[in-house]
Amino acid sequence: MIFIQIDRKTREPIFRQIVREIRTLIDNGTLSPGSKLPPSRVFAARIGVNRSTVYRAYEELWALGYVEGRPGSYLTVRERIPIAHELDDSTVGLIDWKNLTSAYLEDVVSEFSQYRPEGVKITKRECIDFSRLQIDPRLLPVERFRKSMNRTLYRDGEHILNYFPYAGYQPLREYIAQRMRIHGVAASMDNVLITNGSQHALDLITRVFAGPGKTVAVEAPTYANMLPLLRCNGVNIVEVPMLSDGADLEVLETVLQSQDISFFYTMPNFQNPTGITTDQAHRERLLEICMKYRVPIVEDGFEEEMKYFGKVALPVKSMDTDQIVIYVGTFSKVLMAGVRIGWIVAEKPCTDRLLAVKRFADIASNSLSQAAVYDFCRAGLYDLHIRKLHRVFRRRMQALQRAVSEYIDPTCLECTRPTGGYLAWGSLPGEYIETERVRNIFENNGVIVSYGNYYFARRPRNSGFRLSISMLDEDTIYEGIRRLGDAVTELQEKRHVT
Amino acid sequence: MIFIQIDRKTREPIFRQIVREIRTLIDNGTLSPGSKLPPSRVFAARIGVNRSTVYRAYEELWALGYVEGRPGSYLTVRERIPIAHELDDSTVGLIDWKNLTSAYLEDVVSEFSQYRPEGVKITKRECIDFSRLQIDPRLLPVERFRKSMNRTLYRDGEHILNYFPYAGYQPLREYIAQRMRIHGVAASMDNVLITNGSQHALDLITRVFAGPGKTVAVEAPTYANMLPLLRCNGVNIVEVPMLSDGADLEVLETVLQSQDISFFYTMPNFQNPTGITTDQAHRERLLEICMKYRVPIVEDGFEEEMKYFGKVALPVKSMDTDQIVIYVGTFSKVLMAGVRIGWIVAEKPCTDRLLAVKRFADIASNSLSQAAVYDFCRAGLYDLHIRKLHRVFRRRMQALQRAVSEYIDPTCLECTRPTGGYLAWGSLPGEYIETERVRNIFENNGVIVSYGNYYFARRPRNSGFRLSISMLDEDTIYEGIRRLGDAVTELQEKRHVT
Repeated sequence: MIFIQIDRKTREPIFRQIVREIRTLIDNGTLSPGSKLPPSRVFAARIGVNRSTVYRAYEELWALGYVEGRPGSYLTVRERIPIAHELDDSTVGLIDWKNLTSAYLEDVVSEFSQYRPEGVKITKRECIDFSRLQIDPRLLPVERFRKSMNRTLYRDGEHILNYFPYAGYQPLREYIAQRMRIHGVAASMDNVLITNGSQHALDLITRVFAGPGKTVAVEAPTYANMLPLLRCNGVNIVEVPMLSDGADLEVLETVLQSQDISFFYTMPNFQNPTGITTDQAHRERLLEICMKYRVPIVEDGFEEEMKYFGKVALPVKSMDTDQIVIYVGTFSKVLMAGVRIGWIVAEKPCTDRLLAVKRFADIASNSLSQAAVYDFCRAGLYDLHIRKLHRVFRRRMQALQRAVSEYIDPTCLECTRPTGGYLAWGSLPGEYIETERVRNIFENNGVIVSYGNYYFARRPRNSGFRLSISMLDEDTIYEGIRRLGDAVTELQEKRHVT
Repeated sequence: MIFIQIDRKTREPIFRQIVREIRTLIDNGTLSPGSKLPPSRVFAARIGVNRSTVYRAYEELWALGYVEGRPGSYLTVRERIPIAHELDDSTVGLIDWKNLTSAYLEDVVSEFSQYRPEGVKITKRECIDFSRLQIDPRLLPVERFRKSMNRTLYRDGEHILNYFPYAGYQPLREYIAQRMRIHGVAASMDNVLITNGSQHALDLITRVFAGPGKTVAVEAPTYANMLPLLRCNGVNIVEVPMLSDGADLEVLETVLQSQDISFFYTMPNFQNPTGITTDQAHRERLLEICMKYRVPIVEDGFEEEMKYFGKVALPVKSMDTDQIVIYVGTFSKVLMAGVRIGWIVAEKPCTDRLLAVKRFADIASNSLSQAAVYDFCRAGLYDLHIRKLHRVFRRRMQALQRAVSEYIDPTCLECTRPTGGYLAWGSLPGEYIETERVRNIFENNGVIVSYGNYYFARRPRNSGFRLSISMLDEDTIYEGIRRLGDAVTELQEKRHVT
């Protein structure tokens, strides 16, 4: 029998009083390990409080590790193990962790520490944000995916939750191979390796085919996350400038001629960050050059499925008769990011090596996500979803382009005109302007973009910026570009003044 | 209007005839891109076949990439992109991938290629298999987890599927920190980093704090997957022999004294593969030695929750006042492996470094799995599940130990007597015997075990083996150990003969 005094006059909530009193009884040994707490209903009646108050107190006691048992049934006092307190920030350990990591890793660590905390953008509420590249939550097929997940666990849960498909869930690999064939790529299931998203795919490729001291060539600008990825693998970076129709292939050829390059990393569709898509001729020439120097191409098939205006060239991989291309794909930018599914397509001697390292570095990817995504795809829902995205983004991209012609003075800003995807690139003509200055004027005008420095290995040198329409509807895009127009005009005027 | 001739006299199934005919119509341009196929009901009536036959044909056409649309609604002919065929095995690429990888990676690749294909054990059907370490599917809480998953997607799907918590889903990190405190470890959420399973955690730690040319000390035998993991990071391995009460600490001290060791990797509970648990004194001494030489300890908290006999010492991390221990935990061996969730607990300057590399190597772990597992844990179901496992495995381990006393001649085989977990280790006394010879005699007697060589960096040298009871009920364990008794007696007799 537990006796507790409830004080209804203090400001301490009743449930806290209950927690405090029972903790005292446990700490002083009055309640010994194994003792049952009275059922919440009985106890509530006895001390004259609401049952939900007692329930809340019991939950708190459970969370504090004082009692065990399933909430709702009998709770018993836990065997008392000294419960450690949280670590104090002031504790100084014996190991100098910084000293244990290599210099190139330490650079990445310090770079990462300068990132703003995730999700916390220090911006004014009323700004229109063109910086985020994520799937619009309004377009996520959550309910349909929930059903696929449910079906998967219902039908096959025991198997799926215990299954370790090193190279990936077989039916999904088959589906991806079939889908790659639709994009013209010669591939069977054996050429497909599932990864935890495309970033993980790029990391595996870098670990296996580059590594400390090696050099990789990238486009400039390029996918921002690729740069620290290369750096934390100790890889040197050579930049090949982007022209309006893709990477400068003359520069690429000079680079391949004069240096030992492990691979060339390229994103031929709606490139992140510029939105530029290369044409068939560019792709053929790229392949030709890399074949000549026997340098593998890592083709990031970012938004391969998001070609919604006119005809777009097939992947470089589709022409790859000599198997020099490693293709990387992902569901994250079209379907959903939280499932973490990407893939690699390459010839088997290449995927075999990637698989061995993947096998020992993380055993296998999440089988449950893979099976649920497969169920979703197999039911035709992925096709349906992509068609919906095409309808929506065709309109959004048109809105962007109309707004640009309407509100932007082309002498103040040049914008790319993408034929798909979510991204466009704005270039400020003239000399380089400090990012902080651009940012101030943009934010004063109520608009946020993603500034160009992040997309270059050697910074700062470019006052361009990325515009993403992935999260914005047409009206917002219109209004945002109107504000951007004001901002770049203001910038141009101030430039002439100084 | 599509005209098709169905031949009911051939052996070609009708649905295949429909597929063939429609493909011909598309290939020769009779059906142009965008044309609608007739609804399956209408088409079936017209050609006089069952509707499900037409449906099956349409599904096949969809899978072949000839049509698009959601099955059940109108299908249309796809825009014709040349569909590539599967890669022929005989294709020889231009790149010599083998030549691009470092020598230490190539060793791991060739080691991996010697693995038997996953799931395909070439064994007699009637053997009792003590080799598999997996959660018994009969004990997986699939239905309860399905509900957690459902609830997660229903309540919070839009957020969760788009969420990138670099260090992990915050509520789950809090839950794990609280759980670690119950095990005596001083930790708050900030010390917890979620990984894609514990293998991924060990890989991150190795990448960041060891790396090519560095040396790591491990127990011998040790967790089999740790050895290729270290090798594929270019790390040298020093072995510290296991005695009956844990790693030989005198040898460890000599090693730390004479060599530059990046960390010592240890599994203090129910060690994989020996089942040995170290006592409090051993843990204190281990910590003392490593503190003296300022060498970090990587403590693999494998089966921390599976202490079901008597009292077991708290983790080494619980005594780690000077923050030299990096603790690794996982849900894979207690809850379910398919969700791929593990974690690291260490002081913040250490996890900060691991997080930066994790951020750029795979962005974030699967947020959906994390949220669903959190829902499951928070409802008290994880506690409930662990209690159930304790009940079951207490009985299974007792069965193992009773069967060993009953059927095994101790002069032919010595077995460890674990106080928890799923594993025991058998040692054949006397000189080393070739694994193939042991395997033959064991399998002839109808029993499979996991042979010792895999658990040593330098092999072969030990004719011990691992016994896992994770998948076997009591009766099967009894019968299996009876067979093992016959096998080891036979082995001993033959040894004397030769």
